[in-house]
Amino acid sequence: MTYWYFNKGEKNSICDVEGIKVGHITKAKGSIQTGVTIINPSPKNIFRHKLIGASHVINGFGKPVGLIQVNELGTLETPIVLTNTLAIGTATQSLIDIMVKENEEIGADGTVNPIVLECNDGELNDIRTLHIEKEDVKKALDNARTEFQQGAVGGGRGMVCYDLKGGIGSSSRIIPLGDKEYTIGVLVMSNFGSMKDLMFQDQRLGPTLVEMTKIEDREDKGSIIVVIATDAPLSHRQLKRIAKRSQSGIARTGGYTGNGSGEITLAFSTAQSIPSEKIEILDLKFLHDSTMDLFFQGTVEATEEAILQSLLHGEKVLGHKGKVISALKDFFPDLSLK
Amino acid sequence: MTYWYFNKGEKNSICDVEGIKVGHITKAKGSIQTGVTIINPSPKNIFRHKLIGASHVINGFGKPVGLIQVNELGTLETPIVLTNTLAIGTATQSLIDIMVKENEEIGADGTVNPIVLECNDGELNDIRTLHIEKEDVKKALDNARTEFQQGAVGGGRGMVCYDLKGGIGSSSRIIPLGDKEYTIGVLVMSNFGSMKDLMFQDQRLGPTLVEMTKIEDREDKGSIIVVIATDAPLSHRQLKRIAKRSQSGIARTGGYTGNGSGEITLAFSTAQSIPSEKIEILDLKFLHDSTMDLFFQGTVEATEEAILQSLLHGEKVLGHKGKVISALKDFFPDLSLK
Amino acid sequence: MTYWYFNKGEKNSICDVEGIKVGHITKAKGSIQTGVTIINPSPKNIFRHKLIGASHVINGFGKPVGLIQVNELGTLETPIVLTNTLAIGTATQSLIDIMVKENEEIGADGTVNPIVLECNDGELNDIRTLHIEKEDVKKALDNARTEFQQGAVGGGRGMVCYDLKGGIGSSSRIIPLGDKEYTIGVLVMSNFGSMKDLMFQDQRLGPTLVEMTKIEDREDKGSIIVVIATDAPLSHRQLKRIAKRSQSGIARTGGYTGNGSGEITLAFSTAQSIPSEKIEILDLKFLHDSTMDLFFQGTVEATEEAILQSLLHGEKVLGHKGKVISALKDFFPDLSLK
Amino acid sequence: MTYWYFNKGEKNSICDVEGIKVGHITKAKGSIQTGVTIINPSPKNIFRHKLIGASHVINGFGKPVGLIQVNELGTLETPIVLTNTLAIGTATQSLIDIMVKENEEIGADGTVNPIVLECNDGELNDIRTLHIEKEDVKKALDNARTEFQQGAVGGGRGMVCYDLKGGIGSSSRIIPLGDKEYTIGVLVMSNFGSMKDLMFQDQRLGPTLVEMTKIEDREDKGSIIVVIATDAPLSHRQLKRIAKRSQSGIARTGGYTGNGSGEITLAFSTAQSIPSEKIEILDLKFLHDSTMDLFFQGTVEATEEAILQSLLHGEKVLGHKGKVISALKDFFPDLSLK
Repeated sequence: MTYWYFNKGEKNSICDVEGIKVGHITKAKGSIQTGVTIINPSPKNIFRHKLIGASHVINGFGKPVGLIQVNELGTLETPIVLTNTLAIGTATQSLIDIMVKENEEIGADGTVNPIVLECNDGELNDIRTLHIEKEDVKKALDNARTEFQQGAVGGGRGMVCYDLKGGIGSSSRIIPLGDKEYTIGVLVMSNFGSMKDLMFQDQRLGPTLVEMTKIEDREDKGSIIVVIATDAPLSHRQLKRIAKRSQSGIARTGGYTGNGSGEITLAFSTAQSIPSEKIEILDLKFLHDSTMDLFFQGTVEATEEAILQSLLHGEKVLGHKGKVISALKDFFPDLSLK
Repeated sequence: MTYWYFNKGEKNSICDVEGIKVGHITKAKGSIQTGVTIINPSPKNIFRHKLIGASHVINGFGKPVGLIQVNELGTLETPIVLTNTLAIGTATQSLIDIMVKENEEIGADGTVNPIVLECNDGELNDIRTLHIEKEDVKKALDNARTEFQQGAVGGGRGMVCYDLKGGIGSSSRIIPLGDKEYTIGVLVMSNFGSMKDLMFQDQRLGPTLVEMTKIEDREDKGSIIVVIATDAPLSHRQLKRIAKRSQSGIARTGGYTGNGSGEITLAFSTAQSIPSEKIEILDLKFLHDSTMDLFFQGTVEATEEAILQSLLHGEKVLGHKGKVISALKDFFPDLSLK
Repeated sequence: MTYWYFNKGEKNSICDVEGIKVGHITKAKGSIQTGVTIINPSPKNIFRHKLIGASHVINGFGKPVGLIQVNELGTLETPIVLTNTLAIGTATQSLIDIMVKENEEIGADGTVNPIVLECNDGELNDIRTLHIEKEDVKKALDNARTEFQQGAVGGGRGMVCYDLKGGIGSSSRIIPLGDKEYTIGVLVMSNFGSMKDLMFQDQRLGPTLVEMTKIEDREDKGSIIVVIATDAPLSHRQLKRIAKRSQSGIARTGGYTGNGSGEITLAFSTAQSIPSEKIEILDLKFLHDSTMDLFFQGTVEATEEAILQSLLHGEKVLGHKGKVISALKDFFPDLSLK
Repeated sequence: MTYWYFNKGEKNSICDVEGIKVGHITKAKGSIQTGVTIINPSPKNIFRHKLIGASHVINGFGKPVGLIQVNELGTLETPIVLTNTLAIGTATQSLIDIMVKENEEIGADGTVNPIVLECNDGELNDIRTLHIEKEDVKKALDNARTEFQQGAVGGGRGMVCYDLKGGIGSSSRIIPLGDKEYTIGVLVMSNFGSMKDLMFQDQRLGPTLVEMTKIEDREDKGSIIVVIATDAPLSHRQLKRIAKRSQSGIARTGGYTGNGSGEITLAFSTAQSIPSEKIEILDLKFLHDSTMDLFFQGTVEATEEAILQSLLHGEKVLGHKGKVISALKDFFPDLSLK
């Protein structure tokens, strides 16, 4: 039995779930170390072909936009933007503008529910200067593809995880069920944790790192955004159950969800779509809840690995006020996942 | 026994709760019929002296910003902005900018949780053209005072309630308890309901109005924002209980919370504040839950009346595409509250 | 336009939803004024053919059994028992025993989630003496049929509503949708409210009753259980939305959900069932959320009427300590619903 | 830096929080392998001096009694009973009877909210025969003391954790804050997990155990009850935040909260009590949320250790149908916690 229970997808990223693309805009210049990452969950017009989704709040010390409607109607109707906390207004307005341009019915008959999620990158980024501009969301969306960079890029540029360089990480798992295979993909923006607590698979690296760095124990006031995608036909209720398991994946890397660590999870399924037209009856397929175990365990694994990938892809960043955050590989150059 | 059970405050508005001010910016020109209303809940720096608060989602078909953190930490740390649905990004960014300017610690050590609530004013307002600008929030805040206009003003400019002109309405109730008196104040932005359903105190005006106007039955895709303030010392949990009762106040005017009617309530207490400094222990006072009945009934009454006030203060508005929405008093010029 | 918007079903009861039966056991002797009401939601073995369901807590000052699992798995797997607060243990054990006897797999492979809901009938019933016995639940189940008594019977025997005799009440509505008709049925056990607040359709009877009875204002420490059934194909999430609207139905009769009034709603759909066997994929149909308006308004109406029916069917009861609770018709013998 | 971050209390059990006592009744005879464990949280009459509490549902595939009122009113008013799933009715009724006897006001003026939590011990116990009797709860309560057995005793008698003998486990942590020390105590009834997943501090024992036992991968259909006590002055909202962190403690032992694993947490504070008398104003102290980190991490640690203690205290049990469940120490006799 190896460390992981399930096989990984071909790309080992959220883009193993067919149809999903990820794009970044990275702003890395002097005291500006920030950016935007966007997940485009569907090749179709998502406003007219909404995806079933659900969100879960592990720790609500965060400023997510759009999650309340996701949980009321059980659907996602825009791409998902990840950026820094003080840029959520600009990012939200930008996403609204994009959606309004693409869909003439928005504003004429009903509105749109933009999804913008954030972490505070103020340790490396001069967040008070508010350098995200409306164009950045559009550019990130235009950049979106199935192969994307991880680590200190996009919304993850200034993020710090376990006092090391965190940011964007991704992973996937293949879930065999009967004669079918489903895929779970996870993308995180990691910005949480105290160095002392870091677990890397079976290895408790935290105490060793503290000895090496002399970094004293600091308050956990980061946060993490977890986005879970699957091609399995799951209902809103089932996706909410899956989203809840992300906490266990975070815990396996050593996190205990500190007071200041806003931890928010969004899950969606690409298996079927809900039309915006007002048809009366929907024919849908859903897995039986007795099959959920596999999806729960796969979610925990992929979340754990996505966080570790965000650390493995990290690189040393010099931020504002001369702050330097090192990468995990600066201390353990030969480290790799089992 | 009269229609109302409790006495009203002197102003019969949310500003009967000491320290609260309300400001508007109204944009009423041709096809632009929209605006911003802001509630400044405290004369102190609210970021450093947070108020205890809670939110409740009656129908989450809405795009509120900031409510998830209110429910995690039980506090409010910014003024409350009310505007149209497609302006939430601009309004959020504007409120962040104001808070950042006033508080040098934001972005240096932690962030800020802006509260922006919305309804869709697209029936009267050309909402797709996005006419709210960042300056508008600042101007509305500068305009805030204890006497304020109601009806088709501020965020309520383009709102439609029971197919009549709705918008901003407010009311208050005095709650006697032992030898003390507490105040509950409610402010609504009303944008919900089908004409046929309107109840005005004991009178079912809806059917009469339908006969007068020949307005056919339409889908309820509006929404309502209810903000409840009190000077009673209540906990987050108790304020959440109070917020839940707003649904009963809405129901008494005839509403049944249609699918498309996003209905969101925010409640807060001005009785004591939570410092942002990291002191260890807080000495707080809270009312015993056995006293809640009075506050529950007072909330229902003040919510009912605030909605009726939004209708009574309404005036006929000519909006985009030549759409005209009449005021309640256009049909019943002599109508007044018992 | 009449007072009600929708037509009623043939029986005007929850049993207009095909397959549902209701049974009572009434204990009315001296100081014992209590009982059991059971709703059998399905003619099939409900444990093996579970129904989709959801619950909503309006005011959690109550002791319901089984609702947490209903909301996790979205299914109902037993009949629904209504009784007095201090009998919930006996009723729960009795329901477990019945289910264990009927289903050999319970306890061998998994367990069962009994649903028992309660109100406090201590005003008329000597509740401390605990007169509900295990046999009573079985007898009520055996008694269940599609025609059933309302008022001071079964679990409703000792209940008091608006200081009048309340108890069991039921109503139904026919919801036309395209070329189909769906049914909503509601059954309440009413035990809440202060006399002064009673609304009877457009008539505020409360103040008149207070004048007639000289009953002073009392604390609202009752509760109400609302059970909503429909044959429309609705998801767990949609049923939860419907359950939330019951608060508006309660409000239309004058209630504001007092501190001590535990108010709990359970909704379920008989349209399709979820097998307990572990099949992999379920083919299901669900209505589009844009059709929900009709169901929301129908639920509000049927809840309002079910409460009024519980009052109209009430009769004067002499309970323990000589307490007498009069019926609404004792004061208004000619009262009837428009 | 050692494995644990905080020091343990003197007893390393929930009884390190002053005033708490734990009692068991164990039924271990042939196919009957079950029991009752009771936590008496206060030396005072808890009905009249309620404790502040909160519950959190990790996975609601469970049948807890009493949690809905805990979350509405934020208080605990009875001892906490842990037993098997099909005995919840008897246990609930028994607890009601005890409370009614001790408090003449129950049933005369208001009711009581019994807390009964359960796991399914059907793997070892012939759960269908329903061997818990009403006397058992009273006996367990009479047995309660500050020193108590762990492992295959009381409610934990028939429980199975990671395919090993689980049951009752407990642990505590001392939380230094300024010049004070607070205590967190955790008691679990463990009945979850697949052998392959077991983590024992840094050691992944699961795969080794699977090789030793040839126990194939089984469905996780157990559950776990986590009870968290503290003498720190925390509010309902803060206790709910703490309860949420128990999931991270479970995850550190290898659990991912399988579909069938009902996982329920209850947290309470002994620091101050809420009188049942209807006084108007309560003077309370609460820690500032910025101090929560220590309590969150302490909760995760104590939950992790309590689960491991339940395994370390386990002993081989021969149950019904000849089923044998071995203890962890049968495979690793020299295992101990770092």
